[in-house]
Amino acid sequence: MPRHFHEELDGLKQTLLAMGALVEDQIRRVMRALIERDDVLAQNVIDRDREVNAYDVEVDEKCVELLALNQPAAGDLRFITTAMKIVTDLERIGDQAVNIGQRVRELNLEPQLKPYIDLPRMAELAQAMVKGSLDAFVARDTDLARRVCASDAAVDALNHQIFRELLTFMMEDPKTIPRAIRLILVARFLERVADHATNIAEMVIFMVDSKMVRHTLA
Amino acid sequence: MPRHFHEELDGLKQTLLAMGALVEDQIRRVMRALIERDDVLAQNVIDRDREVNAYDVEVDEKCVELLALNQPAAGDLRFITTAMKIVTDLERIGDQAVNIGQRVRELNLEPQLKPYIDLPRMAELAQAMVKGSLDAFVARDTDLARRVCASDAAVDALNHQIFRELLTFMMEDPKTIPRAIRLILVARFLERVADHATNIAEMVIFMVDSKMVRHTLA
Repeated sequence: MPRHFHEELDGLKQTLLAMGALVEDQIRRVMRALIERDDVLAQNVIDRDREVNAYDVEVDEKCVELLALNQPAAGDLRFITTAMKIVTDLERIGDQAVNIGQRVRELNLEPQLKPYIDLPRMAELAQAMVKGSLDAFVARDTDLARRVCASDAAVDALNHQIFRELLTFMMEDPKTIPRAIRLILVARFLERVADHATNIAEMVIFMVDSKMVRHTLA
Repeated sequence: MPRHFHEELDGLKQTLLAMGALVEDQIRRVMRALIERDDVLAQNVIDRDREVNAYDVEVDEKCVELLALNQPAAGDLRFITTAMKIVTDLERIGDQAVNIGQRVRELNLEPQLKPYIDLPRMAELAQAMVKGSLDAFVARDTDLARRVCASDAAVDALNHQIFRELLTFMMEDPKTIPRAIRLILVARFLERVADHATNIAEMVIFMVDSKMVRHTLA
């Protein structure tokens, strides 16, 4: 394989990491918008999704080019095809930030229902999973990938806890229902972020081990 | 390209269509389980997800093999890499059937809240979108793909309508909240099926036109 190819492959990794950092930042910002009830910041996150989408296309194009112009060996081939799948998950993590941003703007039309404690914890966990899954990918580190998969249970548990708590609010006072449902949705969007990170981590394990790990861990 | 390669490519198409038919059938069955309050059928759908997952791995392996053993021309290369992405969406459509199946089992523990009218319509639309997106893929038919993308608005509208109706139930009688929320979730899962079909259709347009259609249609 020419030296050029490995430089290109390295560039691909850097682009994916940059995209990962961007979507992580989108989650971080939208949670700050939620907590600080900041409409402008929420709209900002929504608008910045275009940058995430641009990365999606860039990575996709780069991967097809790498496949077309080289004849990568088995390991590199799987790395590139996995990158093409991962980028889709990253793009959809970005979509979750947009979904949360829209709920934030709706929530800001009414007084805050309750202080947010579990949602920020959930967001931090989900963000760490996104970062971990990408680090695992570029380092082909299955141990790290497995730890990411294991974290998903904690996010699911928080999601259920938030759901039950908000159910109590709704039962006690139906006026809280619209706000409570929006918060339940925010929790579900964060759960989906964690799911995407888990998907990425499972693909990394599959890529490295080429064993059937996806669908048996779930 | 050897004749063999085109046979393999044809086999790939057939496998993808078979996987598509399976996930469509999963949606159809789980909706019947909802309407007929059939616990056994719901569990059946949940258990059959293993077959969907097996397809996921099979298509993935076949694609990597096709890339590794041949040097496909630009058009075929993009077809194969698109297949690898599409299979992920199909697998996640299968997951939505499982999600609905779990809600059906929970819903069956209480009396039915209301007759289901919009949910079956939503499911039919979503199923048709799945079928259309795959037909568009194998035929490289961008007109059909665009029609699939256009259908997404009708599914979203039904989702909002169902949400508003169930909100009214909850406001009027808090005892209905747990059931109403489960039905809201079923509607969201169907919406995600339609989203996945839209994703597939957008990838088809991107594959054929190699223009930036994804992210501008949304």
